[in-house]
Order: sequence, then structure tokens, then C-alpha cells
Amino acid sequence: MTRPTSPRPYNFSAGPAAMPDAVLERAASEMLDWQGSGMGVMEMSHRGKEFGAICTQAEADLRFLLAVPENFHILFMQGGGLGENAIVPMNLSRGTRADFIITGSWSTKSHKEAQRYCTANIAATNAADQHTRLPDPASWRLSDDASYVHVCSNETIHGVEFQELPDLAALGSKAPLVIDFSSHVASRPVDWNRVGLAFGGAQKNLGPAGLTIVIVRDDLLGHALDICPSAFNYKTVADNGSMYNTPPTWGIYIAGLTFQWLRAQTEGELTGMAAMEARNIAKARLLYDFIDASPFYVNKVDPSCRSRMNVPFFLNDESRNDAFLSGAREAGLLQLKGHKSVGGMRASIYNAMPLAGVQALVSYMREFERSHA
Amino acid sequence: MTRPTSPRPYNFSAGPAAMPDAVLERAASEMLDWQGSGMGVMEMSHRGKEFGAICTQAEADLRFLLAVPENFHILFMQGGGLGENAIVPMNLSRGTRADFIITGSWSTKSHKEAQRYCTANIAATNAADQHTRLPDPASWRLSDDASYVHVCSNETIHGVEFQELPDLAALGSKAPLVIDFSSHVASRPVDWNRVGLAFGGAQKNLGPAGLTIVIVRDDLLGHALDICPSAFNYKTVADNGSMYNTPPTWGIYIAGLTFQWLRAQTEGELTGMAAMEARNIAKARLLYDFIDASPFYVNKVDPSCRSRMNVPFFLNDESRNDAFLSGAREAGLLQLKGHKSVGGMRASIYNAMPLAGVQALVSYMREFERSHA
Repeated sequence: MTRPTSPRPYNFSAGPAAMPDAVLERAASEMLDWQGSGMGVMEMSHRGKEFGAICTQAEADLRFLLAVPENFHILFMQGGGLGENAIVPMNLSRGTRADFIITGSWSTKSHKEAQRYCTANIAATNAADQHTRLPDPASWRLSDDASYVHVCSNETIHGVEFQELPDLAALGSKAPLVIDFSSHVASRPVDWNRVGLAFGGAQKNLGPAGLTIVIVRDDLLGHALDICPSAFNYKTVADNGSMYNTPPTWGIYIAGLTFQWLRAQTEGELTGMAAMEARNIAKARLLYDFIDASPFYVNKVDPSCRSRMNVPFFLNDESRNDAFLSGAREAGLLQLKGHKSVGGMRASIYNAMPLAGVQALVSYMREFERSHA
Repeated sequence: MTRPTSPRPYNFSAGPAAMPDAVLERAASEMLDWQGSGMGVMEMSHRGKEFGAICTQAEADLRFLLAVPENFHILFMQGGGLGENAIVPMNLSRGTRADFIITGSWSTKSHKEAQRYCTANIAATNAADQHTRLPDPASWRLSDDASYVHVCSNETIHGVEFQELPDLAALGSKAPLVIDFSSHVASRPVDWNRVGLAFGGAQKNLGPAGLTIVIVRDDLLGHALDICPSAFNYKTVADNGSMYNTPPTWGIYIAGLTFQWLRAQTEGELTGMAAMEARNIAKARLLYDFIDASPFYVNKVDPSCRSRMNVPFFLNDESRNDAFLSGAREAGLLQLKGHKSVGGMRASIYNAMPLAGVQALVSYMREFERSHA
């Protein structure tokens, strides 16, 4: 992975998050004139042929990368994950019942918001475990008549990830699975046989804040509540090719450049998404192995469901937190402070974080331990 | 107004629209490193001190430019004008009644969408005049009990602008006035004594698509319907300083650069918004005067309410439309095709369009007339 001549610091922000240098450099170079059009991308009519080409290419590249089947629509929307917490039940619940698997802060928020629109049932929760392990699917109390089952497939704050999506059919549910994949989209393949709808804000792995990706199976369109705003009605958005209202054009452009960057990645014999997944596994393993081997640092998440993207960890002596963070900044390691609801540290190591960045973090952690233990 | 060494074409897009070169050049230069932070703006946590400074400054600059009183909140949201067509009645209607003044495509859409949430009364309409003149406020049939009165203060498609906002109190209404000022925000001052809420997409005069500006009087917060999504509840957004959910950070940054550019403008002894208004008056007058003096071109809007921002016009012989547009492109005059619902041509001459751009358009129109008349 190339770095600029003068390397930038490594940015471990949970989102908005680090982006590939190559994407940023390309965007800067095209800022006043996209491919000889005489216009920057922000200045183009969304209905013109130039932006139409950008949007069509972005959708095609994402469909290729994630192997999205033909019977799924890819929608570019606004409102982020928190917006989707309302938009999903407005579109899918039919005012009836939906099941929620509580695994951390984000699924808790999704459940709370859905109560405005339907009976939101908690089918399982790991709250008693402080969101450090996933409830066994065999224990989920799924409703007979749920309109959908909601799962946050990677909890950004608690660092808990489904390493395999639940097979609802095998659990006796006929409901479609909805996954909030905001913080690990495009870090690994998606098993679309198990998914009815996936949504995610772009600001972790795909692009800037303000773009929301929704991938939805076609039979789930057309059931929105009357009070669903037209701009957030999946069928309306799909029927208009994500241009019912003016889409977040810059976000789509940057995400499109990121998709092209992802397609170009290689790791040994692997390319594209497979290369990224291999790299993400290697990055996460390096960091977790170091933490587990050290008496100085601790990660509390069960190894079976540790996130490859978001690694919360603690110093065994939390009085050293400030020293750790200021030393990290001096070492060019940014935004490592943990979420306020969890405390400690958090290293978000999304696609744009190279292995070298995780190596630099581990080196710093080792040196900090050596000098403070 | 400075142009780059190799001048770019003049871009008359109705939106997303031309932006100041200086804003784009600054954004490009800071793409990988904002002010020595080691991060680009798209890569910053919205809760970090760097983006906090950007957002605070943007809000302060907008408040200064538009002379927004202290009892109004400035909100940075998502969803655009079409989103606000639902978000406004979800927040303000209390499920009761609202009055709409129909003056073109946008107010028509606002009225239609509001019917999901309240009794949406058409208090006046210019449909019989094909949206070419504004209905006299003295003729408006305002409800006694309207929760608000909606006006699109500049109709982008039909080119109709309120040169003075209606004084609802003088008309006997106690309802707050809601204005959709998407396509002329920051082109002229706003009389806040007459306004309860103003909203607009940023993609005409302020920045990229995906950022929505809402300016709302504090007594209008806190009355949202239960079915209003949290992310679109004005009180929730205001209480969280526009950071209840991740805001469109890049859009806020670009809008902030645009606000700084606006503050720096001068025109004779005028500065900032006053300078822009004077420039916009001069630009519009040049184009309308030319059209009115020519038998070859026509603008059908009543002179009392012609938009300074969006100038729809027609060739008297529409068989020449394609030749006009292709010649314009060759002359470096882009995106002049009219909206499909109106036809003909449309020149959008927002803040970022210099007088020289309008002069170039008039020169081209004169030459085209000379060679085709």
C-alpha cells in the first residue's frame, strides 16, 4: 500500500475514518475539473450524463465487490445508520412486529427507535454480559410473525462482530434478516442467502459521512407505512435509481473511487474483497494476539466474536490513559480514545488502515508497556 | 472574482451548481491534511476538536451572513428539500392543519407530501397562470387555525421569486411562516421578523448535495409527532448541536468555506451579503433586460416576481433549441437546458456565477440571434 512521500499519521478514528491516500489524491486532482468536463463533481447536475456515469459505475462496482445478487437493489440514501433505524421499520414492519437481537449500543438504539412504528421484540440480548459475547442463536426467542429480524452485524462501540450471519430459516423463522453493517461493510463477503436487507453509513469503510448504502431484496419493497416520507421510501428510491431527490453526489463519487481502489487491491493471489478480508484478518490477529499476550492491556470481548474492525482495549492501570494517548499522538497514532460509554481505548482498523499502521500501533503499545510496567 | 489561469467554462446548472474556484482550490489543497492535523476533513471524527472547530465556525459565519437572530437555531441536517417536505410537517403540524401557497413545482410537492401528516390546505395558487406570477397575498385564504404557512420563496424550476416575504401577521394569521429557500439562500437578506422556519438544500448556493440547512425559531421546537424519526426531530438535532447522528461533515466544511468566501466579497462599498445581493441584482438585470429587448427570446414570468437566481427562457423558434445548446457548450456555457417540465432553457446564476459569466451568456445569445434571426 503506497503512502505519500511524507507519510501521514495513522488515524484510528471509528468514523468518519481514515481513507486511502490514493482516493483522496484522486479527488483533489479532479476537484475543479472532472475528466475534462469543465466541472467539479460537486458542481454537476445529478441528472446529467457525467454524474450518471459516476453513479452507474459506483453501483456496478459495489455490486461486483459484494457479489450482490440481481434480485437486490442498491440504494444510495441519506440519514445514516440512525436515520435507517426509523426508515427500516417504516418500510418493512407494516406496523406489526419485529425482532431485535441486542448486542451493543447500535442494536439497542435500533430497537428503541423501531418502537415508534411497530411492536419491537427483544428476541435475545447480551446486556448481562456487558455486550462482550454474542447470544447463541439457538437461544433466540424469535416471534412467529415478525416482519423482520434486526441484527447489528458489527457493533462499532463494543467491538463485537458476527463471524457468521444467523441462518433464520434454520432457526424456524420466515422473517427476512436485516443487518446494520455500517462498520464492517466491504471488509468481508456477505452471505446474501441469509439477508433481506443490509444498511450502513458510508463513513467507516466506504466514504464520507452523509451517504447511506441500502441493499434490499426486491420483495421487501412496496410495503412502506403511509407516514414514510417519500424521500425515504425504498420503492420510490429504487424506482428512481436513487435520484428521487438529489442524492449526496460527492459521497457517491468518493465511495465509487473507494470501490475502484478496493477492486485493485491484491494480497498474494487474492484480489479485491478477498484480498481485503485476508488483510483485515491479519491486521486484527496481530493486534489481538499482542493484547492477549500482554498483562498490561486487556480486551474483554469473547474471542469467538471479536470485531476485525473495532478493537476496544484497556490499560490495566487506567490512570495511565492520558499518557498513553498523548504518547500515541506524538508517535503519529491518532484518535485512539475509546467511546465515552465504554472508556479505555479503541483502535478502528478499517480497510484503509494498512498492516503497517497496526504494526506501528503494536510497537508503540509494546514500548509504552516496557517503559511503564 | 479571480478565475484560474486556464478559465473554466461557465456552469449554469440549477443544482448541484457551480461553486467558487477559491473554495474548490482550498478544499483540494487540504484534502489529505487539514491545517496540520494529519487528517483530511472527511477522515475526522465529528466529535473531535478539529471538526468541532469547523462546524462551530460555519454556524457562526452563516449566522453573521444572514443576520440570524439569537432565538433561531441553525441546524445541519440530511435529506434535502424533498426530505424536509415531510420533516417540516412531522415537526410543526401537530397533526392538525397547514396552509400552502402554490407557486410552482416545489411548493406543489411540499403540499402533496404534507398530506401524509396533516390537513394540507391550498390557501392560494398560481396554477392558472402556469406559475408565472405570484398570487396577491391579499387574496390568500389563510386558515384560522393553521399550524404553519408554507411558501417556496424561490421556485427553481419556474423562476418565480418572492421579492418580499409575506407579512402573515398583517394578513391576520398567527401561524409561523415556513420558507423553502433552497435556491436563493444567501443570495439576499432574510426578514426574520416574518419567518418561523427556513430550510434549504445546500446544493445551489452553499455547498454540495447532501447537506440541508434548517433555521428554526426556538418556540417551534418540541412539538414533533411521535412518528418523527429521532434523526429528523428538530429538537433532538438542536439539543445535540447537529450531532445527534453523524452529520454530513464534508458538506458542512465546504459550506463553511463558502460562507468565508461570501464574507470576503466586496462590491464597491458593500461587503458580504450586501455585496452579493448587489451583484445578483446586476446579473439578473443584465440577462432579463437583454431577453426583454429581443424578439428572439422570451421569459414568461411577470417582472414583479422574476427570480434573480433561475432564469427560464425560450427561443421563439424551439426547433433551434439543440443548435443553441450545442453552440453554447462550444462557447464554454454549460448546463443551459431547461427543466423537462417547462422546456426551453434555464440559466441558473447563483452566487458563484460572476457577472462575466452572464456577460458571456448574453454575448452568445446575441450572436446566436444575429446568425439565426
